[in-house]
Amino acid sequence: MADVGAGISVAELQLAARNHGMPLEALRYDVTPAGLHYLLIHYDIPDVDATSWRLSIDGAVRTPVTLSLDELRSRPRVSLAVTLECAGNGRALLEPHVESQPWLVEAVGNAVWTGTPLRGVLEDAGLDDGVQEIVLTGLDHGLDHEVEQDYQRSLPLGEAMRDDVLLAYEMNGAPLPPQHGFPLRVIVPGWYGMTHVKWLGSITAVTGPFEGFQMTGSYRIWSSDDDGEPGEPVTRIPPRALMRPPGFPDFFTRHRVVERGEVELDGRAWSGVAPIERVEVSVDGGETWRDARLGPLPASEYAWRSWTSRWNAEPGEHVLACRATDATGATQPTRADWNRGGFQNNSIHLVPVTVR
Amino acid sequence: MADVGAGISVAELQLAARNHGMPLEALRYDVTPAGLHYLLIHYDIPDVDATSWRLSIDGAVRTPVTLSLDELRSRPRVSLAVTLECAGNGRALLEPHVESQPWLVEAVGNAVWTGTPLRGVLEDAGLDDGVQEIVLTGLDHGLDHEVEQDYQRSLPLGEAMRDDVLLAYEMNGAPLPPQHGFPLRVIVPGWYGMTHVKWLGSITAVTGPFEGFQMTGSYRIWSSDDDGEPGEPVTRIPPRALMRPPGFPDFFTRHRVVERGEVELDGRAWSGVAPIERVEVSVDGGETWRDARLGPLPASEYAWRSWTSRWNAEPGEHVLACRATDATGATQPTRADWNRGGFQNNSIHLVPVTVR
Repeated sequence: MADVGAGISVAELQLAARNHGMPLEALRYDVTPAGLHYLLIHYDIPDVDATSWRLSIDGAVRTPVTLSLDELRSRPRVSLAVTLECAGNGRALLEPHVESQPWLVEAVGNAVWTGTPLRGVLEDAGLDDGVQEIVLTGLDHGLDHEVEQDYQRSLPLGEAMRDDVLLAYEMNGAPLPPQHGFPLRVIVPGWYGMTHVKWLGSITAVTGPFEGFQMTGSYRIWSSDDDGEPGEPVTRIPPRALMRPPGFPDFFTRHRVVERGEVELDGRAWSGVAPIERVEVSVDGGETWRDARLGPLPASEYAWRSWTSRWNAEPGEHVLACRATDATGATQPTRADWNRGGFQNNSIHLVPVTVR
Repeated sequence: MADVGAGISVAELQLAARNHGMPLEALRYDVTPAGLHYLLIHYDIPDVDATSWRLSIDGAVRTPVTLSLDELRSRPRVSLAVTLECAGNGRALLEPHVESQPWLVEAVGNAVWTGTPLRGVLEDAGLDDGVQEIVLTGLDHGLDHEVEQDYQRSLPLGEAMRDDVLLAYEMNGAPLPPQHGFPLRVIVPGWYGMTHVKWLGSITAVTGPFEGFQMTGSYRIWSSDDDGEPGEPVTRIPPRALMRPPGFPDFFTRHRVVERGEVELDGRAWSGVAPIERVEVSVDGGETWRDARLGPLPASEYAWRSWTSRWNAEPGEHVLACRATDATGATQPTRADWNRGGFQNNSIHLVPVTVR
């Protein structure tokens, strides 16, 4: 674990006590059980009665449509394994400290989502010419930087019309748990979590860019402290590998003890941009690297891939590390650039261990 | 939220990112869904193969017994709603700061646990005369204060022989999730969470007091910084009430905004000692109190009880509060006494709100 300069405030602790990452030993599960999948809830989990709940499709469409959950479930059904990661994963490791949900490295999970393609629903409503974006509105309501809002994100039309973008009503074969968006959420494979709008209430076609708070006031890469900088939007997940920490932990520090001898290191790697082509492992804190063995191709293009690497562990202190490279050649930095919102920190994962 | 003096360290943040409380809006559910129930994992979640897993009952017994999961499932079956709370709940609100899992107020949940009484299993093994305690050993392994250990707690024989102490294999009607102790955990209604040993591997009858780390080196009330103080053991849960925060939150501060007019406040209250007899609500930060209406008697003696209280909210800043009293007359302090381990802080719950 890299040093973190600043202490965490009470406000951040409140967020950390509600939201949670995936305990890293859960990297052992190809499909993350629901209660272990990472979770970020912006406001409160809404209390939705699925019987009276309706999804409305409106805006620049020929025929505004209202759908019940049963109607959505009777539409074409698709199941897809998708790795989700929070755009703020790694934030608490940035310096200077960025105040928000204080993620270290574990804001990730890989679940099987079942639903119906968004595309079919949009085609049935009939998009007007000139539609540029699809606005997704959740039922969760709150304030952020003094802006009162229902949680809203938009997708460029091209992304919204992908065959694999789902209106999902099941997670791992069961109805969505309340905290994962019951009764309906969006799944946009490859994109960071903020786009997979939970507790979906409406879908609105718009003919210009949507400039709601979650598009312009958050989820952007601002490289400076200059408030006037428009920044670049956060979109797809760059490559990342995590290691399942070997051995056993100390309760308080989580520092690991590993028995000497042959150790099979393993973990998962993913990228929202292109398939994982390479995972490398270091046993000297990133000084030297060697290739890990990749596991079988994942169940879908956007699900994480397993990797393993054998290590002859000798007594002493070691810092293990891993890094992923995807088919575009993109890889992970030793230390990602700071940005004001603390997004997209895919610095390599370091795991200090004591071998005895 | 009361002020917290000290910043939270990286070690504590690592714990907060893995373990999680129950988001307070989940006080709306009488039975807490599994992924929303609080969770404290001392070491790593063990990877247990239920097919080869066996429970051993040994020590001072006439007939040591080994049971498979199927054999346990074929024994008498009992389901019980039980409120569990972490003994460290409220720790991060103590001053001076106590370093450990940094809970605020939400380390709680109420689930329906199904299993077979421990008593029957002990009777089948046949306890020797002179057995004083029953030692419960989990499969989770780690270090705590330099003591390497499988997680172990003991129960006085009288508690272990209660009819309602269960070896539980289901939570809310489904097999235990990995993080809640799959395939088997202990449920000791009324006691704090540390006693409900997860990933149970063995049950050992002993003829003297068990002095393992989790009995003597933790989970004790030490009123001073004196290392030599033996302290009092942490056992049952004293009374506590929590309020479901009304209105809607600010993302970062979680501060609430409430619309003026009639507001129905609600929440839950529990005690591991005796039934809840009274819940009081304050709308002026604990200066004055009035009785809340108690909901129906809970499904079991050790499940939380709902409460409601109507409030005519007038514009301005208010601090709401609630406190519970049980049938022994025990109630909640405004500010609980500090103790070195940060246990059993059942100070009243404060909820600041802005009414507009």
